[in-house]
Amino acid sequence: MKATIVTIGDEILIGQIIDTNSSYIAKALDKIGIATYEMLSVSDEKEHILETLEKLQNKVELVIITGGLGPTKDDITKKTFCDYFEDKLIEDQEVLKHVKYLIEGFYKRPISQINKEQALVPSKATVLFNKMGTAPGMWMQKENTVFISLPGVPYEMKYLIDEVIVPKLINEFNRSSIVHKTVMTYGRGESLIAEQIEDWENNLPNYIKLAYLPSPGKVRLRLTARGNNEEGLKNEIENRIKELYKIIGEIIVGTEDDQPIENVIAELITSKKKTLSIAESCTGGKIAQSLTAISGASSYFKGSIISYATETKINILGVPRELIETYSVVSKQVVESMALQSQKIFASDYAIATTGNAGPNKGDSEAEIGTVFIALATPEGVYSEEFNFGQPREKVIGRAVNKAFELLYKEILKK
Amino acid sequence: MKATIVTIGDEILIGQIIDTNSSYIAKALDKIGIATYEMLSVSDEKEHILETLEKLQNKVELVIITGGLGPTKDDITKKTFCDYFEDKLIEDQEVLKHVKYLIEGFYKRPISQINKEQALVPSKATVLFNKMGTAPGMWMQKENTVFISLPGVPYEMKYLIDEVIVPKLINEFNRSSIVHKTVMTYGRGESLIAEQIEDWENNLPNYIKLAYLPSPGKVRLRLTARGNNEEGLKNEIENRIKELYKIIGEIIVGTEDDQPIENVIAELITSKKKTLSIAESCTGGKIAQSLTAISGASSYFKGSIISYATETKINILGVPRELIETYSVVSKQVVESMALQSQKIFASDYAIATTGNAGPNKGDSEAEIGTVFIALATPEGVYSEEFNFGQPREKVIGRAVNKAFELLYKEILKK
Repeated sequence: MKATIVTIGDEILIGQIIDTNSSYIAKALDKIGIATYEMLSVSDEKEHILETLEKLQNKVELVIITGGLGPTKDDITKKTFCDYFEDKLIEDQEVLKHVKYLIEGFYKRPISQINKEQALVPSKATVLFNKMGTAPGMWMQKENTVFISLPGVPYEMKYLIDEVIVPKLINEFNRSSIVHKTVMTYGRGESLIAEQIEDWENNLPNYIKLAYLPSPGKVRLRLTARGNNEEGLKNEIENRIKELYKIIGEIIVGTEDDQPIENVIAELITSKKKTLSIAESCTGGKIAQSLTAISGASSYFKGSIISYATETKINILGVPRELIETYSVVSKQVVESMALQSQKIFASDYAIATTGNAGPNKGDSEAEIGTVFIALATPEGVYSEEFNFGQPREKVIGRAVNKAFELLYKEILKK
Repeated sequence: MKATIVTIGDEILIGQIIDTNSSYIAKALDKIGIATYEMLSVSDEKEHILETLEKLQNKVELVIITGGLGPTKDDITKKTFCDYFEDKLIEDQEVLKHVKYLIEGFYKRPISQINKEQALVPSKATVLFNKMGTAPGMWMQKENTVFISLPGVPYEMKYLIDEVIVPKLINEFNRSSIVHKTVMTYGRGESLIAEQIEDWENNLPNYIKLAYLPSPGKVRLRLTARGNNEEGLKNEIENRIKELYKIIGEIIVGTEDDQPIENVIAELITSKKKTLSIAESCTGGKIAQSLTAISGASSYFKGSIISYATETKINILGVPRELIETYSVVSKQVVESMALQSQKIFASDYAIATTGNAGPNKGDSEAEIGTVFIALATPEGVYSEEFNFGQPREKVIGRAVNKAFELLYKEILKK
C-alpha cells in the first residue's frame, strides 16, 4: 500500500518554515507497513491544490494533506475539497460545541463568525475530531484513493495521526510489513565503511535494502526489509547485523529503531539510577537542551553551567585561573577541570564538558577554528579527547554534541 | 521564473530524517526572485527519479535536486542523469585532485577506487566544484529546463548554493522581484487578529498577498509582493505595514525579513553593549542554545545555569531554600530570585529565568502542567509573568522560549 504526503502553504515554498509534519507522518505510516511513495509541498493556490489532488487520484491509495485549515482567508483547503469532491460545507454540531468550549472557556472571549466557520466541513467527509484545536481533520474517498486533510499545526497533526488516523488505517486496510533497523557507527567515513563491508553488502538478499546515512561524526547504516512475514524479516535482519558486527564491530555503538542516541542514553542512565551534569562552552546548551526535550530528564539530569565567557569558567565553574593562563581556555587541562568541577558542584555521577572554537571567528582563545575538547568525568576519574570538527559553526556544534553523546553512551554501557 | 526542488532519499520518505535542504534552497531562490513552484521528495529508485525528471522537463525552468551523490551503492543520481541525458561518465581531473587532497591530506589514508569514483561526472555537465566535500555539483540542461544536482550533506549543499549557484543564476537568467516582509505579533490568536484587520486585508492590492503564520504564542503576518519594480513593491509594503501598526500596533514587536527574533536580540544587545545571562529550568537550555547558535554570542552572552533539579536552584544558583519551601519551586518568588541570582553571579546587565512544569508528568512541583513563570532582571530591578502554555511538552518549551525572547526584546528596545 502506497501513500503520498502533501503539505500546503507558501511559507514552506519560500523557505520561511521547514516542513517537519511530512517526516512525522511518514514515520507513523512506515510503522504500520504503509510506504510513502512521495512527499510534495504545494502553494496556497486553489488551482495548484486541485491539480495535485487530480494527479494523485488512483496513483496511490492514500493521500495525507496538512495545512490550509486555519480560520483566515489564506486557508482554502476546505473550499478546494468541496470543488474536488463536488460537495458543500455543512456545520458539524460536535465540532461547533468544541470550538465554543475552546474560545469561550479557554480564551475567555465570545465566539465570532470566523471561529464558527471552523465547524464547517464537507457534507461527505468523515470528520476526524481534533481535541487539540479548532480545525477538525477530514477523511474522504474518491475512486481508489482516500484523501485525509489535517491541520498543519504540529501538535494538532500529531494528535490526529497517533490517536485517530493510525488506528483507523489499521482497521480499514490490509498492509504488508516493513522492518527497519539502523546500525549506528561513529568515527569512520562512509566510503571506507563501504569498502570494508562490500562482500557483506553484496550478499544481502534482494528484499533487504541497505542505506548509508552519513552525518557529522557518524554514519548510520539502515537495513530495510519488505515482505509479508514480519517475524521472518526481523530474524533475517538480526542475523545480517550479527555478521556486520564481526566485520566492523569496533565502530558500532548500537542499533536504533526509532531512537536518537539521547533517548538511548536517557533510558540507560535512568535504569542504572545514575545522575548527570554538564558544563558546556562551545556547544552553548545544546547537549542539555537535547536531553531535557525528553520528558523524565529530571530523574537523572542535575543541571548544567553554560560557561560561555572565560570569566564564567573561573568564577562560577571554579576552573583555576592559572590553568587557563597556562594552557589556554581551549585545552585538555581546562576541559577536564570543567568536567570535574561540574561533577563536584552538582554532585553527579557523570559530568560532560565541552570547550572549543566553533567559529567563524576566534573567541577567547587562539585555538584553530573547529578545535573542540570533550571531557567526561566518571566515578573513577576523568578523561578527555581533542577533535577538529572543521567548519562551519553548525557542523562543529553538531559533531561536538554527537561525540559527547557517543563518549557518554560508551562509558555508561561499561558499568 | 519557476523552480521545483527535489530531494532524493528513502531516509526522508520513511521519516528517518527531516528534509531541511529544500527550505534552505527555496529561501535562497526567493531572494533572487525565483519562485519555488513545488517541493518533492522521491525514493532512491532509478525509475522513480527518471519519471520525476521527465515530468518536470519544460514544466519549470529550473530543477534543483539534492541527494544521491555519495560514494556508496545506494547513491544513484549520477547514473540516472546519464540515462536521462543520454550521456556517459568521465573523470574530472580537478575534482580528482581535490578528492585526493581531502582523503590523503585530511583523512591521512590512501585513496581507494570508491573515492576515485567521486570524480566521475556526466560528460555534458558543467561541474560545480565543491570545496567542502568530495561530491561535485552538476548543472545540465534539457530543452527549456536547467537541472542542477547537489550533494545532500547540508553544509556542502549550502556552500554550493551560496557561492556557486546563486551567482550563476543571477548571471544567466532574467528574474522578476519578490518582496516579503513579515510582521511579528505576540499574545493574540490568529482568528481575533483576522477580525480586527479584515478591512485592511480586503484593501490590499492584488499583487500583495497576506499569510497568517501561527505558532505557539505568536502569529506572524507575512506580506508578499510580486512584480518588476522592486523599489515600488518595497514602498507599497512599508506603507501597508504603517497602516497595520495603527490597527494592532500594541501586539507588534517588529518586522522580520529573514531574521528570527533571537538574531534581532543578538544584534540589538550587541549594539547597545549590554550583557545577558540566563537561569533556565523548564526550558532546559533551549534559550541559551538558540542564542549561541548565532556566531558572535560571546560578545554579550556571559553564561547560563540550567538548574533543572531543585537542589541545583538552591546550592548553585543560590535561591533561598525558604523561598522554595514557602512558595514552591514553580512560583513568582522563585523565578524572580533565579533571575536576580543569575544577574548577580554572572555580573550581567540582563538575566532571564524560567521555571515551570512542561509535563507530561509533574516534576518537583505540584503546579499544573503547562504553568511557566518567566522573569527578567534588568539594571532597574526584576519582574515576572505567569503563563499557562497548555500541552504537550514541546509546545510548552517552545512557547516559553518565544515568550522569554519577546519580554527581553521589548525590554532592551526601551533603553
